[in-house]
Amino acid sequence: MNRQELINQIKIKKNFLSVGLDPDIDKIPKFLLETEDDPIYTFNTRIIDATAPYCVAFKPNTAFYEAYGLSGVASLEKTLKYIKTNYPNHFLIADAKRGDIGNTSAMYAKAFFRRLNADALTIAPYMGSDSVKPFLQFEEKWAIILGLTSNEGSQDFQQLKVNGKELYLTVIETCAKWGSKDNMMFVIGATKANMLDDIRKIIPEHFLLVPGVGAQGGSLAEVCKHGLIKDIGLIVNSSRGIIFASNGKDFAEKAGEEAKKIALEMSQYI
Amino acid sequence: MNRQELINQIKIKKNFLSVGLDPDIDKIPKFLLETEDDPIYTFNTRIIDATAPYCVAFKPNTAFYEAYGLSGVASLEKTLKYIKTNYPNHFLIADAKRGDIGNTSAMYAKAFFRRLNADALTIAPYMGSDSVKPFLQFEEKWAIILGLTSNEGSQDFQQLKVNGKELYLTVIETCAKWGSKDNMMFVIGATKANMLDDIRKIIPEHFLLVPGVGAQGGSLAEVCKHGLIKDIGLIVNSSRGIIFASNGKDFAEKAGEEAKKIALEMSQYI
Repeated sequence: MNRQELINQIKIKKNFLSVGLDPDIDKIPKFLLETEDDPIYTFNTRIIDATAPYCVAFKPNTAFYEAYGLSGVASLEKTLKYIKTNYPNHFLIADAKRGDIGNTSAMYAKAFFRRLNADALTIAPYMGSDSVKPFLQFEEKWAIILGLTSNEGSQDFQQLKVNGKELYLTVIETCAKWGSKDNMMFVIGATKANMLDDIRKIIPEHFLLVPGVGAQGGSLAEVCKHGLIKDIGLIVNSSRGIIFASNGKDFAEKAGEEAKKIALEMSQYI
Repeated sequence: MNRQELINQIKIKKNFLSVGLDPDIDKIPKFLLETEDDPIYTFNTRIIDATAPYCVAFKPNTAFYEAYGLSGVASLEKTLKYIKTNYPNHFLIADAKRGDIGNTSAMYAKAFFRRLNADALTIAPYMGSDSVKPFLQFEEKWAIILGLTSNEGSQDFQQLKVNGKELYLTVIETCAKWGSKDNMMFVIGATKANMLDDIRKIIPEHFLLVPGVGAQGGSLAEVCKHGLIKDIGLIVNSSRGIIFASNGKDFAEKAGEEAKKIALEMSQYI
């Protein structure tokens, strides 16, 4: 999916929500484990069907599938295929945080972009240019670089000062030179206004993938105030708040309701 | 495998070689593709059998398996099991370069340490403490943190100056505080003497995983001169130089010969 198509989808659907598909087997409804051959896949498809009208993207985190070995990887592959077949206009992000030396990154890029047909892949930048560039060689595919993450550990290295400014700003500035606003985005877990302002000075037109914003308001308003651009430029993800809204028979319905709430809140910014 | 067992194995076998199992399907002997149901697995088992007498560790890079989807992941799982079953005294490194927020890192840790029974996993440090610490909660298992990598891109961020010293030194110093010499190692792609000297000042007792040293000498001598400690403290990996030494019927034999050459060179340092 290219940039203009993504923007169009956001404007048509009046939201920029990504639903994170992180199906922890300890948290999905118990009855699925008893009745389904592939409970993770069934869980996902029902969540996808219920939330698709209220989101523009789906983002499975590969850890939640790899944890269950071959059957988990099979669930992931079936899930990706289900999305691409039934919701071809949704932006599909594989949250895998990959990155290796050049040739090896190229193997990952082929796996996720060609074989699994994801639109985008999250990338860890620590190994530098030759670890990132192989992900930029595919038309209408996206590298989403970890810039500033939302976890506590982001203070350890990302927020260290390098030549007077934070490392994450240097990472964003440097990586941005390797690609363009048409094949690169950044993971930005910032909700503090000054951080987003600093980031927008460097990359005024790139899309940002913002994790962990809930339906409770406040943080979404802040992210929009400081991150939103003419072309929207934001994909905001929510995982657990949506997919584990209920663990009863109504889990899909409740997930849909949660997504709808966030989408409604987003619509006022578009 | 704990630290003392690893040291014992190195002293018994008189080498500290890791064989990198990166079975690129375009490079393995063509005849295997025609005759074998699972050519990657067959390739691996024959390489493993031929090189096991001359190495202390095996290191499959997960990218080379994920690239082939479910069948590739199956080949990886079978390979890990083959090593653990037939060579339980070899140190098994899953080169996956993982790292995510706390809970998600914990999923990866369980997958690689418990389900796949690897001894060690390579970890990307960019996301900081809560992304690394979950890998340190398993007895006799190891997190191998990317410190200074050997690729060209290591200059982009790892070698930036933070408070007057290179970022990779800060990463090593900070990560070392989260674990100990008994559950943490570092990937160090340095062959320059001053880099290894600087690193040994910070972590005098940790094991280093050094990639990309060949049998041609020179670099191995340099690494040993500046990296070797009383307890050895080095695992030196070679992948393509060994496993693709021949692409004929004699591929395993030639791989064994290459490993033997390196092991022989290493023996003089033990």
